[in-house]
Amino acid sequence: MLEELRQKVYDANMELPKRNLVTFTWGNVSGIDRKSGIVIIKPSGVEYEELTPECLVALDLDGNVVEGKLNPSSDTKTHIELYKKFPEIGGIVHTHSSHAVAWAQACRDIPCYGTTHADYFYGDIPCTRELTKEELDEDYEKNTGKVIIETFSDRGLSVTAVPGVICASHGPFSWGKDPAAAVYHSVVLEEVARMALMTEQLNPEASPAPSYLQDKHYMRKHGPNAYYGQK
Amino acid sequence: MLEELRQKVYDANMELPKRNLVTFTWGNVSGIDRKSGIVIIKPSGVEYEELTPECLVALDLDGNVVEGKLNPSSDTKTHIELYKKFPEIGGIVHTHSSHAVAWAQACRDIPCYGTTHADYFYGDIPCTRELTKEELDEDYEKNTGKVIIETFSDRGLSVTAVPGVICASHGPFSWGKDPAAAVYHSVVLEEVARMALMTEQLNPEASPAPSYLQDKHYMRKHGPNAYYGQK
Amino acid sequence: MLEELRQKVYDANMELPKRNLVTFTWGNVSGIDRKSGIVIIKPSGVEYEELTPECLVALDLDGNVVEGKLNPSSDTKTHIELYKKFPEIGGIVHTHSSHAVAWAQACRDIPCYGTTHADYFYGDIPCTRELTKEELDEDYEKNTGKVIIETFSDRGLSVTAVPGVICASHGPFSWGKDPAAAVYHSVVLEEVARMALMTEQLNPEASPAPSYLQDKHYMRKHGPNAYYGQK
Amino acid sequence: MLEELRQKVYDANMELPKRNLVTFTWGNVSGIDRKSGIVIIKPSGVEYEELTPECLVALDLDGNVVEGKLNPSSDTKTHIELYKKFPEIGGIVHTHSSHAVAWAQACRDIPCYGTTHADYFYGDIPCTRELTKEELDEDYEKNTGKVIIETFSDRGLSVTAVPGVICASHGPFSWGKDPAAAVYHSVVLEEVARMALMTEQLNPEASPAPSYLQDKHYMRKHGPNAYYGQK
Repeated sequence: MLEELRQKVYDANMELPKRNLVTFTWGNVSGIDRKSGIVIIKPSGVEYEELTPECLVALDLDGNVVEGKLNPSSDTKTHIELYKKFPEIGGIVHTHSSHAVAWAQACRDIPCYGTTHADYFYGDIPCTRELTKEELDEDYEKNTGKVIIETFSDRGLSVTAVPGVICASHGPFSWGKDPAAAVYHSVVLEEVARMALMTEQLNPEASPAPSYLQDKHYMRKHGPNAYYGQK
Repeated sequence: MLEELRQKVYDANMELPKRNLVTFTWGNVSGIDRKSGIVIIKPSGVEYEELTPECLVALDLDGNVVEGKLNPSSDTKTHIELYKKFPEIGGIVHTHSSHAVAWAQACRDIPCYGTTHADYFYGDIPCTRELTKEELDEDYEKNTGKVIIETFSDRGLSVTAVPGVICASHGPFSWGKDPAAAVYHSVVLEEVARMALMTEQLNPEASPAPSYLQDKHYMRKHGPNAYYGQK
Repeated sequence: MLEELRQKVYDANMELPKRNLVTFTWGNVSGIDRKSGIVIIKPSGVEYEELTPECLVALDLDGNVVEGKLNPSSDTKTHIELYKKFPEIGGIVHTHSSHAVAWAQACRDIPCYGTTHADYFYGDIPCTRELTKEELDEDYEKNTGKVIIETFSDRGLSVTAVPGVICASHGPFSWGKDPAAAVYHSVVLEEVARMALMTEQLNPEASPAPSYLQDKHYMRKHGPNAYYGQK
Repeated sequence: MLEELRQKVYDANMELPKRNLVTFTWGNVSGIDRKSGIVIIKPSGVEYEELTPECLVALDLDGNVVEGKLNPSSDTKTHIELYKKFPEIGGIVHTHSSHAVAWAQACRDIPCYGTTHADYFYGDIPCTRELTKEELDEDYEKNTGKVIIETFSDRGLSVTAVPGVICASHGPFSWGKDPAAAVYHSVVLEEVARMALMTEQLNPEASPAPSYLQDKHYMRKHGPNAYYGQK
């Protein structure tokens, strides 16, 4: 079971450079086995060309390393907070993809300007508030998870309908039912961030797509009557 | 005859990722055999790496699948509306190419700022109005075709002279005498969308190219006295 | 002699797609043998993947084809005008490279904002005026050459110091002592156009580099006391 | 010892085109052996495809060539000034990477808008003042080094905490403990320059990241209690 997850987390990590979402080691993917509560994640600062399934790190949900000789990603605590809070999440991705980071640095939600966005994210992609100095000093990575949770809670968002977030002054996290789905959403988030920037450049008064169009596209792919694809 | 069309539709579909016009499965090409009235189109949600000529879907103009085991593209009804209305069209492409989508999300026509545009599109590339909630609820994809037709009709445009459109809050459709020509126009549309964005960034007061220059370039390639190329 | 030129023109043409300066067939390179007055140029509308040295077209300076079965580039008369006027030019390139076209469509000269520009172009890269309808009706391509000549003449520019131009609403032409140098300058022009756009986005009040810095960089590479490189 | 350095300088030079930081020959890397005071640097104007470890040039800190038949990079004196002033530097890179050049041409410091920047550069990446005509006439490349030194001195910056600079109207220099680290910082500088441009386009009132977040990220990777990576 863990070997299968290990392979999936490895494959998902290797998809990041292939999709041009990471420079150097600036990204990481994890996955969780819900039965055992074991999380597998990329080790910290290891180049993608040197990454092997064997060097991934396994931890329990208290953050104890249960397998692996390397340090886990420095963002591990953020991943664990999200796994603990949201049982529907099976994989998480963090990157510094350029356009998503630009929105994070601009401290702005990404409006849903069209169907590309609406196909995967229901409504705006939220930007968290900044952490306070106290939160940061106490436990930076853990509190990064907590502020994501707060953002979804305060706004009444579902992590299934909105499979990603941007952290103010930092960058994007995305997730999904498994590591591959989480990477898929990180690709969408970056592309949607790029299109939304250009949309505003073409029309500073651009409005979000009509809500009934957003509903339609999301439901076409995700609702009980979804008819996109082969299932 | 259908086998030849099937191969052409396959080749045209495979050109989309090669030309960087699609992310994942966000695009589709179809072609029509006008004698039999059979349309061949990409199946819904199938990755390009896994696409084969055999998995393409054949339908009649009433939308009945006549060959193929997979679901046809979710945009099939839009294609069929256009084929039914415009007998001069032999192939249709839909993508979410980034710059064309940005104009669609900005709900703006793309002005003809220069000869690159004028060589292939006569005048502005129009942006449709938004569908109403009623149109969307009734039959989204069919009415997407109808609003494209309305746009061309209301503005007195010819689908031969203007081989593409952008749908508000959504993205581009393009077409041509066959699937390859439709893909060619989708490449032009994306490149022209990109250049026009940068033109406005450099000169917010930029004007369309003089009409006599637009005429000249279009006629150089398409008029009865065309002298571009080898024919 | 002509065979050597033919190979050089071929190699220079093939460099255009490699340097991402052309989409489809939207570009052409020519070269001239000054002794015989023979110009060799890309045939019109032939895909780069299908181009061979043999299918290039040779013409005299009156525009008569002296060798080759295909139609020469539709821009041939522009090339010939420039060769006739400027004996120091040995090769000419025309492309629709994206950023250079954006400046052309914005009808603006490209200011010399820094040393990348100054290393190869002395001062602004000029944008021509639009052709009049009369000029266009009389002989479009020939008069495109004439308006480039007018631009250099009116502004007192040297084609050696300023090895390129952008034609209003159209795109760039560049040149050099041979076809390879002309392509080199087309790469520089595109890159400089890109950097200048971003410079203005970062600082709408950006000023050209100090004239003594422009002088220094140009002379470092091109003056009698040039000390860049190995000669 | 020198052979090892030669190989490192070669490898670092070859990384520049691989990372898309150079067009043609517009970049160079050097490294220093502190014991002997020997600097090894790319020769001037040599294409990367033709570069070999053997054709690199070795000089002493007075600028005398001690090994190599080719002219050293025209920027050699700038490198030497920096090596003489800052003993903590082991490698230096100069490029004309597009986004960093745009900031240089806009004559602006790059603000620290987020953690991608803060992970490697502590605070703004400074832009030097322009050289005066007198400084340029006296010794352009040497005085380029001196104005970088002045910038760090006047602002009280450490070359360890801020491993790069942009020279007004010119472009970036970066450095590190060895040539590879210098190239790493040139990649970061370019990416950060790109993100910061887009940040301002999305939010013209964007503020730098909170100082405690900048501190945290820098210290996470560089402070005595650094916990990023495997050391």
